[in-house]
Amino acid sequence: MFLELPRLSKIKKLVESKDFERGIVAIIVANAITLGLETTPGISSQTLTWLQWLDGIFLAIFTVEIGLKLLVYKSHFARDPWRIFDLSVVLISHLPTTGAFSVVRSLRVLRTLRMISVIPSLRRVVNGLLSALPGLGSVGAIMLLIFYVGSIMATKLFGEGFPEWFGNLGASAYTLFQIMTLESWSMGIVRPVMERYPFAWLFFIPFILVATFTMLNLFIAVIVNAMQSETEQAAENRAEQGHDERLQLIQEMQDLKEMVAALDRKLKD
Amino acid sequence: MFLELPRLSKIKKLVESKDFERGIVAIIVANAITLGLETTPGISSQTLTWLQWLDGIFLAIFTVEIGLKLLVYKSHFARDPWRIFDLSVVLISHLPTTGAFSVVRSLRVLRTLRMISVIPSLRRVVNGLLSALPGLGSVGAIMLLIFYVGSIMATKLFGEGFPEWFGNLGASAYTLFQIMTLESWSMGIVRPVMERYPFAWLFFIPFILVATFTMLNLFIAVIVNAMQSETEQAAENRAEQGHDERLQLIQEMQDLKEMVAALDRKLKD
Amino acid sequence: MFLELPRLSKIKKLVESKDFERGIVAIIVANAITLGLETTPGISSQTLTWLQWLDGIFLAIFTVEIGLKLLVYKSHFARDPWRIFDLSVVLISHLPTTGAFSVVRSLRVLRTLRMISVIPSLRRVVNGLLSALPGLGSVGAIMLLIFYVGSIMATKLFGEGFPEWFGNLGASAYTLFQIMTLESWSMGIVRPVMERYPFAWLFFIPFILVATFTMLNLFIAVIVNAMQSETEQAAENRAEQGHDERLQLIQEMQDLKEMVAALDRKLKD
Amino acid sequence: MFLELPRLSKIKKLVESKDFERGIVAIIVANAITLGLETTPGISSQTLTWLQWLDGIFLAIFTVEIGLKLLVYKSHFARDPWRIFDLSVVLISHLPTTGAFSVVRSLRVLRTLRMISVIPSLRRVVNGLLSALPGLGSVGAIMLLIFYVGSIMATKLFGEGFPEWFGNLGASAYTLFQIMTLESWSMGIVRPVMERYPFAWLFFIPFILVATFTMLNLFIAVIVNAMQSETEQAAENRAEQGHDERLQLIQEMQDLKEMVAALDRKLKD
Repeated sequence: MFLELPRLSKIKKLVESKDFERGIVAIIVANAITLGLETTPGISSQTLTWLQWLDGIFLAIFTVEIGLKLLVYKSHFARDPWRIFDLSVVLISHLPTTGAFSVVRSLRVLRTLRMISVIPSLRRVVNGLLSALPGLGSVGAIMLLIFYVGSIMATKLFGEGFPEWFGNLGASAYTLFQIMTLESWSMGIVRPVMERYPFAWLFFIPFILVATFTMLNLFIAVIVNAMQSETEQAAENRAEQGHDERLQLIQEMQDLKEMVAALDRKLKD
Repeated sequence: MFLELPRLSKIKKLVESKDFERGIVAIIVANAITLGLETTPGISSQTLTWLQWLDGIFLAIFTVEIGLKLLVYKSHFARDPWRIFDLSVVLISHLPTTGAFSVVRSLRVLRTLRMISVIPSLRRVVNGLLSALPGLGSVGAIMLLIFYVGSIMATKLFGEGFPEWFGNLGASAYTLFQIMTLESWSMGIVRPVMERYPFAWLFFIPFILVATFTMLNLFIAVIVNAMQSETEQAAENRAEQGHDERLQLIQEMQDLKEMVAALDRKLKD
Repeated sequence: MFLELPRLSKIKKLVESKDFERGIVAIIVANAITLGLETTPGISSQTLTWLQWLDGIFLAIFTVEIGLKLLVYKSHFARDPWRIFDLSVVLISHLPTTGAFSVVRSLRVLRTLRMISVIPSLRRVVNGLLSALPGLGSVGAIMLLIFYVGSIMATKLFGEGFPEWFGNLGASAYTLFQIMTLESWSMGIVRPVMERYPFAWLFFIPFILVATFTMLNLFIAVIVNAMQSETEQAAENRAEQGHDERLQLIQEMQDLKEMVAALDRKLKD
Repeated sequence: MFLELPRLSKIKKLVESKDFERGIVAIIVANAITLGLETTPGISSQTLTWLQWLDGIFLAIFTVEIGLKLLVYKSHFARDPWRIFDLSVVLISHLPTTGAFSVVRSLRVLRTLRMISVIPSLRRVVNGLLSALPGLGSVGAIMLLIFYVGSIMATKLFGEGFPEWFGNLGASAYTLFQIMTLESWSMGIVRPVMERYPFAWLFFIPFILVATFTMLNLFIAVIVNAMQSETEQAAENRAEQGHDERLQLIQEMQDLKEMVAALDRKLKD
């Protein structure tokens, strides 16, 4: 245990060094390229094997990296959510990719997103946007409610006539999402529906107005919050400066009162 | 009467208690789930009966709840528009659902929206957005005017050639709404129309510019108003602080003038 | 001439009175309704004659109204652009509607837009939005340039292969406008074009990015300018208050210096 | 060399004179018109020859203009990026337009964009927008990452089933761009894909949410940055005024303290 400690602190220094970070970024970029090359159509199976072998090496390096970080930070590891992200992305790559899990293969590409967790300037932007999310829980909950209620109503009203679009809750929710994005909502969905149910627009037009409005609200609020904090900070700083100068004035005023009071006492004598 | 009063105040306490609120939220959630399950395709009629029986119980609870609130608040009941919303949603569920009213069935799902009226944080968000509406009456009126004038013109100009899209005021208004959302406006509507009326773009392109611009204006104004009030509040507070500090300075200055004036009087003596 | 003057001032009073304004609003609304009714499909020719007779009466009233205003304001008439708008809308209705001018008929509906020029709150909103336009001349000019350059390039590149979409400058401009609104840009236009010209995306994707970005810029700038002026006004007012209070402080300070100087002079004596 | 100098300074004066600038704007406009006329369908080969001859003259003028500027500014030429833009646009026009380069012909139209580099008010708007770009590098990099990762995943998941849309990285990136603009994303792409891969929405709906959100963020940040600087400037100016007034107050206060201290010394004597 006594011998272990110095080694751990050395590992910590290594893991937190700029060079280590740069090396990891380089490997992420290299891995992103090999993952991209794997998708070349008509690639020879030999090249593919070689690329997958490289991918295995990269994965091994990432696994060691995360392992070292787990060793160093121990129970503090989970404190930085980005480390959890890194860990999950590496764990996903170790899942079996045969049979029902074959789709998991394509999730290996998510490793490239580690670029965000490793490069500080990217991490800052994403953190800025994510930090606005908790305050938006209410608008998000309203959005979910609108979709849940809308989907049930659409299924009950149009499910029988148009099972492909509104046959069950899931199909309705997907179709309503499409309608909210305004994609083919009228020519593709609502006009055909209105041929059977002429008053369908009484459901869809209010839904479009409410859903697009709430969604726009959600999007703009996140963005504006992330940008506003800076402006607010500048205003705060200016107010701070004014406050300090006024305090100085008040202080000087009190000095002056002291002086005049002293004068007054002298005159008395 | 003398005996009734204590009971009423007890009911009021019950109705306004946190536990009562939590109970109602729980029942709304339970009811939302049963309403969702009812839409399962190929559901057995036995399960459906059971779900509708549960729904009846939930409706009974809501009816009692609203009844108690009517009893407690009496003529003040209508003061909170959310209570009116709750009342209407419950009343709708008591409408007959046979024959021509069968569509009313699906309106029962609106009960789930009571979540907004019962959970304070959701109510606050919706109130914030709704509070911006009165100030936007003018933009809304302009929007209505644009649609009314646009619909009459479109009906007169293209109604004969394209009765399905522009045959009457209602059809034109719907088509113009679709065009405003930019859904298939060109490939679906305006290009076919231009084959018969080559100058149709002289109507549709200005309409698109004016309508999307006014609509965007309406949407953004609501959102920005709802968000701006906070920033404005912060600026107001900072200005308030500066004002108070300056008042203090002026006060101190006047004290000092008093003191110097007193000195002056003493010197005279 | 001497006799004319009092009459003119009386007419002015009448024309500017609240009751006159209300009367005109009422007639605009009534006319809007008759114009709407004219579009009823399968309307009897008798009703139509009656509606057009009513329309003639309303037009006569508007003509007299504008005539009176011309008489009253004379050369000042053109100072308020809304009066020019009113005049043109009434003049359009007097154009012949036979033969080649039959399309002019539908322009009579524009009279309903006089609602904006007559109701102050609507006029204020539109004025607010229009007042932002001059400052946006530059962005508008850039937009026009983008469209002009884009249309020439599209005509030269794809005109031969797709004459319907890019056959001449006008067709190209219309198609590029459609692409800018993102309507069917890919499935409808660019994918077919790419089958013949595989690198067409090198033209269209930059065009979409630049055009939507500039358009969004134009729209948002108008809206934000119209809203910002209020916030800016509030900040200006707060700054004004601070400035006044500081001036008062400086004044008091100078009084005090006077007093101390006077004390000093007395001590010398 | 001694003789050269005065000539160079004369050329500099000429090149920077208002009249020279106006002349260049006039020639750009004239050239824009001839370039537009060239696209007239069914134009006679004689007119075309004449227009291309005019175009050659205009190009010669531009070449001389840029040549003079190169001569005048020498190594400073590249300091103004707009001059680089002007140079490249003129150089492009001198490229051979035969054979494989025939597409280069249409790039000559880019010359019309020189309007932006020559007219100061247009240049200022574009500079304003471009100046926001460096600060947005991080969001842009995240956007690229999203597209790269999304394209690889889409190619791996759906490439086999839908080679036209997802056959290789480029096809996937184009299709994902289309999906991000929401054009036909559901009826055109995702619904067909879901018929073969029922869980495709698990990939596409998160992609739409993340991509539209990041893109909106990018667009709005550029616009808001360009507009905010003005508001911020006004707030800065107001704070500056308050600061100056407070400094004056502090100065006056110190004067006063001096005076009272002097009084005090006199009393001692």
